Amino acid sequence: MQTLKVDLGERSYPIHIGEGLLDQPQLLAPHIAGRQVAIVTNATVAPLYLERLTRSLAQFSVVPIILPDGESFKNWETLQLIFSGLLTARHDRRTTVIALGGGVVGDMAGFAAACYQRGVDFIQVPTTLLSQVDSSVGGKTGINHPLGKNMIGAFYQPNLVLIDTQTLNTLPARELSAGLAEVIKYGLICDEPFLTWLEDNMDALRALDQVALTAAIQRSCAAKAEVVGADERETGVRATLNLGHTFGHAIETHMGYGVWLHGEAVAAGTVMALEMSARLGWISDAERDRGIRIFQRAGLPVVPPSEMTPADFMQHMAVDKKVIDGRMRLVLLRRLGEATVTDDYPQEVLQATLGADYRALAQLKG
Amino acid sequence: MQTLKVDLGERSYPIHIGEGLLDQPQLLAPHIAGRQVAIVTNATVAPLYLERLTRSLAQFSVVPIILPDGESFKNWETLQLIFSGLLTARHDRRTTVIALGGGVVGDMAGFAAACYQRGVDFIQVPTTLLSQVDSSVGGKTGINHPLGKNMIGAFYQPNLVLIDTQTLNTLPARELSAGLAEVIKYGLICDEPFLTWLEDNMDALRALDQVALTAAIQRSCAAKAEVVGADERETGVRATLNLGHTFGHAIETHMGYGVWLHGEAVAAGTVMALEMSARLGWISDAERDRGIRIFQRAGLPVVPPSEMTPADFMQHMAVDKKVIDGRMRLVLLRRLGEATVTDDYPQEVLQATLGADYRALAQLKG
Repeated sequence: MQTLKVDLGERSYPIHIGEGLLDQPQLLAPHIAGRQVAIVTNATVAPLYLERLTRSLAQFSVVPIILPDGESFKNWETLQLIFSGLLTARHDRRTTVIALGGGVVGDMAGFAAACYQRGVDFIQVPTTLLSQVDSSVGGKTGINHPLGKNMIGAFYQPNLVLIDTQTLNTLPARELSAGLAEVIKYGLICDEPFLTWLEDNMDALRALDQVALTAAIQRSCAAKAEVVGADERETGVRATLNLGHTFGHAIETHMGYGVWLHGEAVAAGTVMALEMSARLGWISDAERDRGIRIFQRAGLPVVPPSEMTPADFMQHMAVDKKVIDGRMRLVLLRRLGEATVTDDYPQEVLQATLGADYRALAQLKG
Repeated sequence: MQTLKVDLGERSYPIHIGEGLLDQPQLLAPHIAGRQVAIVTNATVAPLYLERLTRSLAQFSVVPIILPDGESFKNWETLQLIFSGLLTARHDRRTTVIALGGGVVGDMAGFAAACYQRGVDFIQVPTTLLSQVDSSVGGKTGINHPLGKNMIGAFYQPNLVLIDTQTLNTLPARELSAGLAEVIKYGLICDEPFLTWLEDNMDALRALDQVALTAAIQRSCAAKAEVVGADERETGVRATLNLGHTFGHAIETHMGYGVWLHGEAVAAGTVMALEMSARLGWISDAERDRGIRIFQRAGLPVVPPSEMTPADFMQHMAVDKKVIDGRMRLVLLRRLGEATVTDDYPQEVLQATLGADYRALAQLKG
């Protein structure tokens, strides 16, 4: 087992990563203050892991709250199921909410924990690669609004993140690839040697090699923990973690939540950020193509939806949280391994990026 | 103008109290970071004060968001009106949400500010006595859930509280009385000399004497600011502010939100806490009767609803946030001017308190 620490003063917390951690009660108990525990999970994950986690919580009074599975349910109506479950079981403000599942479960359970009786304890047990390397670390929680993704939420830190790498054995290949999009992102924004490591280990990762997966998760969480520790509320450097996300959110919003997986949208969105960085002359075409190739080897889309026009992108991007006082801030690459957040670019370059021929770029690498 | 400071480290903020403060733009501008401002108010307050406040914000881009008036609208559906208003006007994360109205508007606007894009700036401009002396100070925000009052919310501090005492000139007498319930509460829990002052000034307060009102608001806010500064998240002394609230919430829940005003329920609930304190031998019958008399002079009910049985109270109190691991904590009085939070009392005394003849007690004082 490896343990990282997210350093946030009084609200610091550990991330444990290893095989079979679901079956280790002594890792959970020190982080649970009361007698009541609510496990929030979904209909897909519950049959796989709910019983094992419940067995590791035998000393507590546990209520399971099972949500429907999918990004399309990341809304207020589903959040109400959590509040109703807690209230019906008469959970008080010393309860602990445990999220068992992927990013949607974690975001909703975390936001519910942030709001229930104005805040109760919270533990993340992420079971998808995406949530293990990204959403379970850093305290962003929330739900979608019909007018925008993740528009309603809270910064709310867990007491513990418990990552059992064995849970990836049941993850569909498409979701594994989606998680790899965020893993690749860390290499692009702050760790060029990690990109080389990923090029060497991509096949092993997709074949579910546990040693390679553990290493990739550890390195990704360490990168995220460092950035979050330096900038919890995203006033500065944390925003670089949104590489590809402004373009990606536009894709997710336009296509309807859940049609593209988040990681898939981030992959195509990051290719657009690579292209824009190349058009600005910050990276070479060869570096852009190297980035595109890694996403392709991870089994990810690198071409935005053909039905989306530049005007569609502009419309959806204008309500993104990265807009400050009307200026659209984008995360771009100064070089591979160094991201920057900027609203200082010629508007024509953004327009050209939105209208670029990604199909041709993808075929050149194919 | 008088200015108090709520001392919460980095999140400290001032409370300005005085006549005509709505018309002083220079008090607002230093606390607004961006260009966008949303004024959240309701259909009753908007015709009275929205135009004046908007005029004081002439240098900003202001969108008004007008909610229906009443505690029965303090729910998710009404909260959505705020989110939709902000998203439709494309407000970004540097927007400032200003609550213009009573406690319901302040609680909802504050919770919306806490959740919108995971947190934006927030200013309280309370226009009822209740919100001026209680809910606008201290950072408690939230909405009701069909299964319990204030069950969903956040601790979220404003940047500024601006109290214009002239707004009380348009407040219905019943609501003025409801606000006086919380004013009296401060005397009971921590300031016995203030009780004497209230006995001397009650008629002036009810006649809207501005000097008396300003003094009462200032002393109430100072008491609350001190308690909140010592215990923001209500792990200890802050809980004493809930004197009468556990009984009172049961009354509000049982009768349906909005049938009894919050202050009315707190008055009757505090009489129950006085009675229980007397039954425990902590205060004398004469002290209990003195407390009852002050509430009566403020025009407040001192008898709980005749249709509520002890079993009704127990059922509603069991889901109150003051329950910790199944033990019901109550705020009681050691003496007039000193409150204590305890779950250490004989169950029979609670039962006897719930079944006491409050009608007889009230008539003795009448």
